Amino acid sequence: MGWHQTNDPKLKSWIESANAPDSDFPIQNLPFGVFSDGANSSPRVGVAIGDSIVDLSVLARAGFLEQDSALFVQASLNAFIAAGRAQWRAVRLRLSTLLETSNGELRDNSAVRGRALIKQAEAQLHLPVDIPGYTDFYSSKEHATNVGSMFRDPKNALLPNWLEIPIGYNGRASSVVVSGTPVRRPKGQIKLPDVERPVFAACRKLDIELEMGFIIGTPSALGDAISCEDAEAHIFGMVLLNDWSARDIQQWEYVPLGPFNSKGFATTISPWIVTLDALEPFRCAQPVQSPQPLPYLCHGGEHAFDIALEVDLRAAGAEAAQTISRTNFRYMYWTMAQQLAHHTSGGCNVRIGDLMGSGTISGPTPDSCGSLLESTWNGQRPLHLASGETRAFIQDGDELVLRGWCQGEGYRIGFGVCAGQVLAAREAA
Amino acid sequence: MGWHQTNDPKLKSWIESANAPDSDFPIQNLPFGVFSDGANSSPRVGVAIGDSIVDLSVLARAGFLEQDSALFVQASLNAFIAAGRAQWRAVRLRLSTLLETSNGELRDNSAVRGRALIKQAEAQLHLPVDIPGYTDFYSSKEHATNVGSMFRDPKNALLPNWLEIPIGYNGRASSVVVSGTPVRRPKGQIKLPDVERPVFAACRKLDIELEMGFIIGTPSALGDAISCEDAEAHIFGMVLLNDWSARDIQQWEYVPLGPFNSKGFATTISPWIVTLDALEPFRCAQPVQSPQPLPYLCHGGEHAFDIALEVDLRAAGAEAAQTISRTNFRYMYWTMAQQLAHHTSGGCNVRIGDLMGSGTISGPTPDSCGSLLESTWNGQRPLHLASGETRAFIQDGDELVLRGWCQGEGYRIGFGVCAGQVLAAREAA
Repeated sequence: MGWHQTNDPKLKSWIESANAPDSDFPIQNLPFGVFSDGANSSPRVGVAIGDSIVDLSVLARAGFLEQDSALFVQASLNAFIAAGRAQWRAVRLRLSTLLETSNGELRDNSAVRGRALIKQAEAQLHLPVDIPGYTDFYSSKEHATNVGSMFRDPKNALLPNWLEIPIGYNGRASSVVVSGTPVRRPKGQIKLPDVERPVFAACRKLDIELEMGFIIGTPSALGDAISCEDAEAHIFGMVLLNDWSARDIQQWEYVPLGPFNSKGFATTISPWIVTLDALEPFRCAQPVQSPQPLPYLCHGGEHAFDIALEVDLRAAGAEAAQTISRTNFRYMYWTMAQQLAHHTSGGCNVRIGDLMGSGTISGPTPDSCGSLLESTWNGQRPLHLASGETRAFIQDGDELVLRGWCQGEGYRIGFGVCAGQVLAAREAA
Repeated sequence: MGWHQTNDPKLKSWIESANAPDSDFPIQNLPFGVFSDGANSSPRVGVAIGDSIVDLSVLARAGFLEQDSALFVQASLNAFIAAGRAQWRAVRLRLSTLLETSNGELRDNSAVRGRALIKQAEAQLHLPVDIPGYTDFYSSKEHATNVGSMFRDPKNALLPNWLEIPIGYNGRASSVVVSGTPVRRPKGQIKLPDVERPVFAACRKLDIELEMGFIIGTPSALGDAISCEDAEAHIFGMVLLNDWSARDIQQWEYVPLGPFNSKGFATTISPWIVTLDALEPFRCAQPVQSPQPLPYLCHGGEHAFDIALEVDLRAAGAEAAQTISRTNFRYMYWTMAQQLAHHTSGGCNVRIGDLMGSGTISGPTPDSCGSLLESTWNGQRPLHLASGETRAFIQDGDELVLRGWCQGEGYRIGFGVCAGQVLAAREAA
């Protein structure tokens, strides 16, 4: 039995909630995360299944897994990831077997089952990995074109290097937080057009960036380059990522060395890392690239993934959220493999747990923009919400929720949510 | 006895090599690092004194220090730094006492002394800290002016934000290496002016950037800002830093998100972290800032440090090195306190071991430039070496050595060396 078996669309689980067609976590998914609960406040490694979490530390101690339980009694996935790709696959295959409808090993062992299954609603989810480095790319052609049209020249919206380089920059890893963490509106330097000097004030143009991120599973050594063909084997899995952005701070600070405080106050990721193996059935062709990239960025075959994405906004005080954007990860011009090959092409090493953001994912239409900057055209065309309110940018108390899933026949491989509510800026300077 | 006592210029050590006027490591310095040696290959914490290293793990186990030896049986200083500023000061004060000429406790205990003192020449020095985040600033007005004159407009060399913001960007922490680590010439995309498309090739404009870095000792929480007045209390100490730069790769990639692969292949730091306490006698006035910075960047008193800096080049095949630049850290326009206050002003948290580079340190004259880009004016005015050779940029086999010290009366607080030899680019793509 190989790992491909875990992706069989016909598989069902004896955990009934996993069989609902709209569950993000069917037996074909089995994403990894870190959680704790009221009964045990120590973070440990778990796998999402339906509305529940399987506690891998319990399973390992009870002899249901071959791996040492020490790999799972951890506040991050890094130790498990370091065990290597064969182990990721072995654990996922074993869980696929153990949770499958016809398998009674765990199902009929009420003592272990009772300890090993925790309801997600009763658990706290933690940042799943220690992130040694966070890199953010800029790989959506639609996004880069929108931004270039807005701030530079619509006729030459893409900069000359954009079609040659999967442009990226180093982000701030310390402020990457897990979904659910409130995000405080940053203060910073803002330069108003009619005033000679900048002011230090609360951001007035707080925005989201709908992104996905991938997590490095297999490191590389300093001086080595990862080839485009080998790159996907270095990826453990993917998450949703919200690259919160203070547009007014960004505009004043970013020349010539790039965004800094306008991004460094918070980046939110979803808590469950969906493995590349689980995404395999949804592999699809990337957009045609013209000109053909330089040889070190070329790979045969299909390297995009068909992942539906949406952004929901629950306005401050509102009961219901509404969807403000729908797009798809497959629109990305540069693939993850190309991003990673480029990142290491000069010899830069990558480490286990490194997070690589895709860059804002925008589609070809206004309702498929991955940022308010684009969908409101820098605030000029505010969104009209169902409540009658408008939004040019994000207001205090607004909650933003990113969702993503691959739609299979009768099931979906979901990412859960990547959510954050915005708090007012702090009072003191 | 307070920690200021450790800076008394009259102090002498019974380790005679520490009393030489040109020793980087007199008893007034006592910088912290991590080392191993032939007798014990496990990295552990030590302090440099003269030509020797004091093994703090041995001293602690033998009862010469109050601290638990577990703090020092470590491959990085992070655990010791996490013990807090009072402990940094207590250990430094205790060592100052223990190593002072008149103190016989260790001097006359040949058994412990024999195990606790290792010659630097026989030790291997390691990266002193685990670095969760690396930020690089751009705080030398002379450097920013030189670069702006070269690539933009000499009449408006400084960008409008430069006098308001201590401009900085996120660097790549994974490729920070300790002095002595060879640096492989990177490959990357290079766009030649007379060719339509870029090529992927070995860097032809490999350069150094003479910088200093400071290490965060006291962390801050996400959402909190560190005030300018409090900032220095968050700093554990300083190192020399060479921000190796591939100028041709940089020029093509850096718009609009900043340098990436042109810097990410290697950053070298010196192995000994000189505490801010040891530098205290060399505190001096920073340059006058005009306009006066915004209030969150204002601090009373003196916040610069008088640290003489030089760059030595040993050309490939040459026996002797020659000094190609002399400058001083005191020329920096923005202080470390201002850099840190700005970094956290939007709520970005800092962590123990975070490295903050000053940016290239250039003085007011051509022989005080901190990069070859400046001293050769982008290669147009090559350096003439004593051997008769010239250098527009760095060639394979060249060794670059940064040095820095504070000159006291009859002693100096030195940083040792920050050295790296350049290897040829790897053969394969």
